[in-house]
Amino acid sequence: MTTDQASRLEVEDLQQNLRSVQERLARTHDPAGLRAELDKLHPADLAYILEALPLDERLVVWNLVKAEREGEILLELSDAVRESLIATMDSKELVAAAETLDADEIADLAPDLPEEVVQDVIRALPQEERVLLRAALSYDEGTVGALMEFDQVTVREDVTLEAATRYLRALDELPPHTDQLFVIDRGNKLRGTLPLARLIVSDLERVVGDVMVPESVKLRPEDRAEDAAQAFERYDLVSAPVVDLITGSLVGRVTVNAVMDHIREKSAESQLAEAGLSKEEDVFAPVWNSFKNRWAWLAVNLVTAFVASRVIGAFEGSIEKLVALAALMPIVAGIGGNSGNQTITMIVRALALGQIQSSYWNKLIAKELGVATLNGVVWGGLLGFATYLLYHSVALGGVMALAMLLNLLLAAGMGVAIPALRARFGRDPAVGSSVLITACTDSGGFFIFLGLATLFLL
Amino acid sequence: MTTDQASRLEVEDLQQNLRSVQERLARTHDPAGLRAELDKLHPADLAYILEALPLDERLVVWNLVKAEREGEILLELSDAVRESLIATMDSKELVAAAETLDADEIADLAPDLPEEVVQDVIRALPQEERVLLRAALSYDEGTVGALMEFDQVTVREDVTLEAATRYLRALDELPPHTDQLFVIDRGNKLRGTLPLARLIVSDLERVVGDVMVPESVKLRPEDRAEDAAQAFERYDLVSAPVVDLITGSLVGRVTVNAVMDHIREKSAESQLAEAGLSKEEDVFAPVWNSFKNRWAWLAVNLVTAFVASRVIGAFEGSIEKLVALAALMPIVAGIGGNSGNQTITMIVRALALGQIQSSYWNKLIAKELGVATLNGVVWGGLLGFATYLLYHSVALGGVMALAMLLNLLLAAGMGVAIPALRARFGRDPAVGSSVLITACTDSGGFFIFLGLATLFLL
Repeated sequence: MTTDQASRLEVEDLQQNLRSVQERLARTHDPAGLRAELDKLHPADLAYILEALPLDERLVVWNLVKAEREGEILLELSDAVRESLIATMDSKELVAAAETLDADEIADLAPDLPEEVVQDVIRALPQEERVLLRAALSYDEGTVGALMEFDQVTVREDVTLEAATRYLRALDELPPHTDQLFVIDRGNKLRGTLPLARLIVSDLERVVGDVMVPESVKLRPEDRAEDAAQAFERYDLVSAPVVDLITGSLVGRVTVNAVMDHIREKSAESQLAEAGLSKEEDVFAPVWNSFKNRWAWLAVNLVTAFVASRVIGAFEGSIEKLVALAALMPIVAGIGGNSGNQTITMIVRALALGQIQSSYWNKLIAKELGVATLNGVVWGGLLGFATYLLYHSVALGGVMALAMLLNLLLAAGMGVAIPALRARFGRDPAVGSSVLITACTDSGGFFIFLGLATLFLL
Repeated sequence: MTTDQASRLEVEDLQQNLRSVQERLARTHDPAGLRAELDKLHPADLAYILEALPLDERLVVWNLVKAEREGEILLELSDAVRESLIATMDSKELVAAAETLDADEIADLAPDLPEEVVQDVIRALPQEERVLLRAALSYDEGTVGALMEFDQVTVREDVTLEAATRYLRALDELPPHTDQLFVIDRGNKLRGTLPLARLIVSDLERVVGDVMVPESVKLRPEDRAEDAAQAFERYDLVSAPVVDLITGSLVGRVTVNAVMDHIREKSAESQLAEAGLSKEEDVFAPVWNSFKNRWAWLAVNLVTAFVASRVIGAFEGSIEKLVALAALMPIVAGIGGNSGNQTITMIVRALALGQIQSSYWNKLIAKELGVATLNGVVWGGLLGFATYLLYHSVALGGVMALAMLLNLLLAAGMGVAIPALRARFGRDPAVGSSVLITACTDSGGFFIFLGLATLFLL
């Protein structure tokens, strides 16, 4: 039972908290005791409990949470659960919750808040924070600007390390993830960075400018968040400065934590999109909300399935004469779809990592057609033989094998072409690629198989 | 063109490096110039270039890389490309490359190295490193032990901050991601941690034991890496100590960077597995390697498709009498598969996040059956009506609508049951869940539709 014991640390602790909250919820009314227990929990742990409770219990717990903690907890929640709680709060509560947060955090929350609440919050903020919030709100999701924080610690190039250290002591506490100070000149222009680890091991009489790292990774607010994430991974960063492209002045910083959240979120999104869910779903969402989250993809699939069905409909005469075709055709379509999905997934990943140069598309398509031919010969041969055994017809077996081969070649060709074309026209090659390829291989597979059968067998 | 400009920073820089290397490769022979250019690149950037080059060019570049850098570059490569390079190196080169690395890094590389090379490396290491390497090799993939590093900086509880600072200065440089020192007693037992940020802002006369954070997240080597990753995200950590469960002594540390790599790797793996690729594929892999990476999943799908085909085969008599059934049946099966995948993806995610308590399965299944009923009424009704319009048969339209509803209910039931059962029996609910649900909804969909048609129409 090592795994059970091993996971004790985090997951078990969390689930123990959850069970204890549930017990208190069930065991008549002890709001005071429950409230005391909730107060002791880290906001992230409280968020976990809220996500794991059905709607009615969730609201009971939420109403016991101290007002001044609501903001930080909302930040930790998944979008769907956050929405379910925001829907129960009035404007005054929301403004109060938002006011406990930093500008960059309010900006993260803003898309889920009613417009008038955002305006109220902006009005209630001190001038300096208001400027920062406006700036934070101006960046699109998926950019470095949206990941940025404004709590960086700056230091001037011409002071001694001793003076810098004295300044830091006066701060009492450094913001989380402060692994380096940002060195700026009088015009707020970034000159370099001073890692704390370097500050600590250096002679205190030296000047910041001599000890700092002059060249470091710099981000711009308009950079893609994904590129920033790759830079963090590639160069093992904990924090990175964000500078204005034109003036070179320091705007904020990005920390590894924001990057990690971004990576998780993107990975979750692509996993959900792959399965046809528009966004993260609250497991305890009302039926109607779930329906709304899922209907779009089902509708798209209905259309492609309908098209495939009409392709079959065009060959009803052939099927009437040789009913075995009806039983065999889904195999041809299915294997084509699987194989096409393998190709397209590999290409989309390689494109995202920037591994495919335009000069190599020929090599790639040749390779994929090679793999498809090999697959076609192996699986087509096998299925052709199985067909012959089942229906005692060499011709039907031959048509089956040939149709498998052709549909696999179609899948390989489309598997390279679809992402290549989408990338060329500036679209995200990942979005909906699985639907597109399956639509091609379904309708294509039915057409190829039934067409060959009509030509050669009837 | 903001996006283009924005992505300039990272991706464009990388691609410029790549193009410049390619040009030098193409432009007759200038190995000295190319070598000089390669020497200037960060190991991660060199890894990117190697991954983006076809096999032959890749080997030319690899042979120009300085021997003492080979180890760190191999570490940065994707598994598939790493294997392609290791295959070209002899034992002596491999041992030399491995010897430039830390024990925990050698352990990461070990699974890809020939056994005798690993033994040679172990023999060549100094005693202390050898013990660490043996320890690192003993942990399973997917555990905290496998993510662990041994370069933590420790300090004793009873010294002053001044003494601690002097000690750090003597070290000259701190290991990357040193955001905190680990405070230990004489028996190497972890007493707490001393964040650098706290060390810097505190009075130097104070004693480490008074300034340290006594309670902090502790990991154990046997903990699941995924749990550690969740702790890093939840509590915004940069590093965390790893302690022995029984003795409480400090074994090593995990840094946010290892965690981020782990998250990326897992996300890539699940994306690939979803599409039926056994592992990350080198885009320029030989056809035969790609075939090996893909055949297993295609074979599984062939089996499930074959079973579905036999279900249809059992109803060949019905199809012969009413050939419209052949055209309509793939719609029923297809929508069931899509809807089942939506349900199973949501449940598997919620299970992974620990959000589903056993007491709530009833609520979940009720909700999913509710969504399925709604979907069945909406889409079944629509498709039933379309069927009536196409084939002018109210009965056929009714069978279509009813079959859609029943297959969606089957999909919802299986979508909850499959991950629930797998979780109960200790299996990873994610692995192959998509294949299983599609197999159910395909065969089930054909059976339901053709069965109903046989009952009511013939």
